Amino acid sequence: MKEKKIKAVLVTIGDELLIGQVIDTNSAFISQQLNTIGVNVQKRVSIGDDAKEIRKSLDMYSGKFDFIILTGGLGVTSDDLTKNALCKYFHSRMVISQAALEHVKSLYKNIYKKPISPVNLAQAKVPAACEVLINRRGSAPCMIFEKEHTYIISMAGVPYEMEGIVEDLLPWIQSRKQLPKIVHRTLITTGISESDLETKIAGFEKQLPPYIKLAYLPGPGKLRLRLTTTAFNHTEESELKKQFSRLKKEVKPYLLSNDDIAPEIKLGKILRRKNMTVSTAESCTGGSIAGRITSVSGSSDYFPGSVVSYSNEAKVNELGVKKITLKKHGAVSEETIREMVSGIMKKMKTDIGIAVSGIMGPNGGSDEKPVGTVWIAVGNKQKTIARKFKFRYDRRRNTEATVSMALYMAVGFVEGHK
Amino acid sequence: MKEKKIKAVLVTIGDELLIGQVIDTNSAFISQQLNTIGVNVQKRVSIGDDAKEIRKSLDMYSGKFDFIILTGGLGVTSDDLTKNALCKYFHSRMVISQAALEHVKSLYKNIYKKPISPVNLAQAKVPAACEVLINRRGSAPCMIFEKEHTYIISMAGVPYEMEGIVEDLLPWIQSRKQLPKIVHRTLITTGISESDLETKIAGFEKQLPPYIKLAYLPGPGKLRLRLTTTAFNHTEESELKKQFSRLKKEVKPYLLSNDDIAPEIKLGKILRRKNMTVSTAESCTGGSIAGRITSVSGSSDYFPGSVVSYSNEAKVNELGVKKITLKKHGAVSEETIREMVSGIMKKMKTDIGIAVSGIMGPNGGSDEKPVGTVWIAVGNKQKTIARKFKFRYDRRRNTEATVSMALYMAVGFVEGHK
Repeated sequence: MKEKKIKAVLVTIGDELLIGQVIDTNSAFISQQLNTIGVNVQKRVSIGDDAKEIRKSLDMYSGKFDFIILTGGLGVTSDDLTKNALCKYFHSRMVISQAALEHVKSLYKNIYKKPISPVNLAQAKVPAACEVLINRRGSAPCMIFEKEHTYIISMAGVPYEMEGIVEDLLPWIQSRKQLPKIVHRTLITTGISESDLETKIAGFEKQLPPYIKLAYLPGPGKLRLRLTTTAFNHTEESELKKQFSRLKKEVKPYLLSNDDIAPEIKLGKILRRKNMTVSTAESCTGGSIAGRITSVSGSSDYFPGSVVSYSNEAKVNELGVKKITLKKHGAVSEETIREMVSGIMKKMKTDIGIAVSGIMGPNGGSDEKPVGTVWIAVGNKQKTIARKFKFRYDRRRNTEATVSMALYMAVGFVEGHK
Repeated sequence: MKEKKIKAVLVTIGDELLIGQVIDTNSAFISQQLNTIGVNVQKRVSIGDDAKEIRKSLDMYSGKFDFIILTGGLGVTSDDLTKNALCKYFHSRMVISQAALEHVKSLYKNIYKKPISPVNLAQAKVPAACEVLINRRGSAPCMIFEKEHTYIISMAGVPYEMEGIVEDLLPWIQSRKQLPKIVHRTLITTGISESDLETKIAGFEKQLPPYIKLAYLPGPGKLRLRLTTTAFNHTEESELKKQFSRLKKEVKPYLLSNDDIAPEIKLGKILRRKNMTVSTAESCTGGSIAGRITSVSGSSDYFPGSVVSYSNEAKVNELGVKKITLKKHGAVSEETIREMVSGIMKKMKTDIGIAVSGIMGPNGGSDEKPVGTVWIAVGNKQKTIARKFKFRYDRRRNTEATVSMALYMAVGFVEGHK
């Protein structure tokens, strides 16, 4: 039984998006969130702070999508045109929203703790034609209009504020639309190219039912495989589950992760469950592994600290790497990272140690150790595993690949040590 | 004298963009790069892996833009539809591009060092109607078509490959179009809200000539102000320069930076010039400041290492923070970060030390020290400056604001010590 898909288009507004001054992270967040409740984002558009373009988008998408989600252009400054453009578009007039007014007042009184200027108060003015959804984290309210069975939703573009609004918007949408469920299952492979993997699983792909879609998503040092279905009933969902198990078996030698949960979150959960602690000794990643570990709230429970040993001297003085090891094998070597693991576990008194050393580029490579050569080790008091990687990207992506691989290796290591 | 603006639309292709599985960083990169040579990106669109949507975009934008830039959907797997969609759209047929074929062969022989499969060889097939630009960093060539005076350019979506192609594409574009220059000047303020700033510089904004645009771009802990003009001749550019000086004076008490260059790059340049070194002692940022410092190639010349002292024990043992200091003032205090600065300078034998300690949230706040309270200190042997900040975001953005503020403070500190 096939039902109608619920479709949305995202329109992000702001010149800064078009000149590339900021990266659009809002669209990914909104898409993800809408996806969880069964709304399909079918198109994303970014336009400038330009009333004509805003109107053109509304003309083009009204009646064709269930939702048009606009973000941005709701600030208090003169380049923010969205609210007036919407007011004109709906032949409406500006009125004070009492709910928005009270919210803005309380925001200034209790959170910002400063007097309100007329400019700020004007944030409570909205076109009479809209329904208001309060923006808990800021003063520009979310406005919802309706036209030709399309909901037009305009919200602040500041990511922190937008995220709060979307949280409140999801139940609002669910209360107004009958929604099917979109189900994804993602796994992550490493050590095999996209084309080799496609050849390997060609048979699997052929036997997939038409309502399950397979996607390949390459990233630095890894490749995601995602199965998707729109589940109108339980059949699709249980078939997806079955196909996902099959896929896991197919890619087994290259399987890095069974899911798409960030490895730092998984690592934290396992460490907490097993009452263990971790520390890192980082050369080429310069502290970024520790940065990822501590991006998880509550990580202080299992992470006391790290040493970034960028120089050889720091490796010797802080981590007890032997001078002779560095001389004989170099800083980027299995011997050195093994000593770094021991050193950091001793220093931070942790159960687990993670160490990395590599050549991130663009300089510093040699024939024997080209740019992208990285050693990663994870160990405890009994045992340390070390692996060599050869990434072939630029500095940023080599670092990203190293950080993510080190975290995945740590997850595998602590999972194996019950 | 007003000339015609050169306009581009970006079309990024991939289901992963619509479900929010990946953040679209390509669009920002391409926009920035095109901007530098005077091409205005006026719209950005993301669509799924869907041949119909690709065709619809070409229909809609051909003849209206000078360039349609397509990224993505050129992989070797079955969800990659772009090349075939283009071939059909141009009523063309697939032919082997000799240049692409030789490139793919050499890539597998010299870089990947493995045999080529038929799937990979097929990457050298392109529609006969297109001009080929080699993709130095991958096997899918860039294809350029022409229709109704619009160039339609299709390139790989893998960021590393796309960046290489864009590098080669810019001179290609310049050889085909007479381009005006788009000029931006950006400064960064801190410690003032968007609305207060707008009130403060309302007079400045009013006197701006119509061809200079002012934009407000808020970010965690800071606010960018950007002036833009399209410079057909020298008048616009010199007026922009004058206005920018005026703007700097207007916002002086809040001025964090005169430009939009990443502070870690500026810091590196100054340290190198002054032959000085830096180290960091990080609590709440968990190594992210060191991560940013080492994201700069060659940073090993001025950065030997860091300590992430997440626990109090690590602060005492590794940085020599006194137990009594922690007991009396707490970990998030001026006294503690001053001792952290001394400790890290001594430990890593650097001229400059940076230390941070704060409460990133969502937990750990108190009435006296709410979430977002952060102390940052920068010092040398003679002097240490310390500042308290109150950010009010979520964990990720509080960390981001702290890292960036610490780096800006370090830039200011080393600039002042000639």
